[in-house]
Amino acid sequence: MSSSHSLWRGLVATVGLVLTAEGLYYLLRYLKWVREQQPRVLFFPAPVTCVRPLLLASPGRCDCPLPHRESALSRMARLLLSARRSLDVCVFTISSLDLSGSVLVAHERGVRVRVITDSDYMALASSQVGTFRKAGIEVRHDQDTNYMHHKFALIDGSILITGSLNWSAQAIFRNKENVIIIKDADIVKAFTEEFERLWNEYDPTKYSFSPQSS
Amino acid sequence: MSSSHSLWRGLVATVGLVLTAEGLYYLLRYLKWVREQQPRVLFFPAPVTCVRPLLLASPGRCDCPLPHRESALSRMARLLLSARRSLDVCVFTISSLDLSGSVLVAHERGVRVRVITDSDYMALASSQVGTFRKAGIEVRHDQDTNYMHHKFALIDGSILITGSLNWSAQAIFRNKENVIIIKDADIVKAFTEEFERLWNEYDPTKYSFSPQSS
Repeated sequence: MSSSHSLWRGLVATVGLVLTAEGLYYLLRYLKWVREQQPRVLFFPAPVTCVRPLLLASPGRCDCPLPHRESALSRMARLLLSARRSLDVCVFTISSLDLSGSVLVAHERGVRVRVITDSDYMALASSQVGTFRKAGIEVRHDQDTNYMHHKFALIDGSILITGSLNWSAQAIFRNKENVIIIKDADIVKAFTEEFERLWNEYDPTKYSFSPQSS
Repeated sequence: MSSSHSLWRGLVATVGLVLTAEGLYYLLRYLKWVREQQPRVLFFPAPVTCVRPLLLASPGRCDCPLPHRESALSRMARLLLSARRSLDVCVFTISSLDLSGSVLVAHERGVRVRVITDSDYMALASSQVGTFRKAGIEVRHDQDTNYMHHKFALIDGSILITGSLNWSAQAIFRNKENVIIIKDADIVKAFTEEFERLWNEYDPTKYSFSPQSS
């Protein structure tokens, strides 16, 4: 057997093994990434629990008689509170003090918070839109009698929370509801574009209300 | 160089290359599968289009003046009509004739259709629950004043349609809404279990209504 033939075989063996090992490494890394990207789901109604400790500026405890265990609500609050740069909320109704509290805490921590909601439902007494505005959070809303019926939020432009759940105590503690948490880049991009489109459409400087001439 | 050494190198080369080629094959197959599993999204309002040709028993056309192009509504109807074995619908309100028509056609084709809905909203004049029951589709509903507020459907136990969209013309043609189509096995399993749990909970033989003794 010639020396060059043997060299060639050695080279092929090395390339083959390196490709296999490197391929395996990237495959494992990719599989881990895919697993992380997979959506997760929360079902409601959630048990009535206290999420106040999550909203405190420094780690603390609460002595109220409510249970303090993990629930679909606490998981959702934790997600909102995990925002570091931006929190874009686009929900039909916001009256839950637990969820609106999480949004307010994110705002106080310096996260850029934007809220889109429905004009008909934001006037309800329980709506937290007024509290948001008082705290300096910009809220925009539709200008017609149809519903801005989305119920989603985007965390740091990379995590989408969406589903059937309106952000109300009735929905959280009493209704049959679902919320899906999605990291898939294409879906997050589609919802980000929808948010920006509506944010632009509902820009108050573009209101086209024309009072009837007297 | 000894013959055994050369043989060993040849073997390693072959194993390496086979592993690389086979690994590449499975990686490509896996990537294709992952791409197919990725969720897709439909946004509403949809333009008012005619989906009647989709509901005909044999391919046909419709001469009505409405546009007949593809839309978020026609895509959703196509998905419902793609059911071959089972169609499990779990929605707060069903009044859209286009979507209820798709469910009825699936039922007529022999697909096992089950519907879960909300007891308060199924009594509305526009609800298609009565039409479903008349056609022989079993419909179950909650027994309390809270809302069965889900808006999802499972096609052949492998595709999930879910989002903010109630199955009404108002939601489809006028509101800001979203629908996500998900094939992820874990999420489909979670919603299938939720459906079965509610189907069992709302079994009419378990109704616990107790008339007050006179």
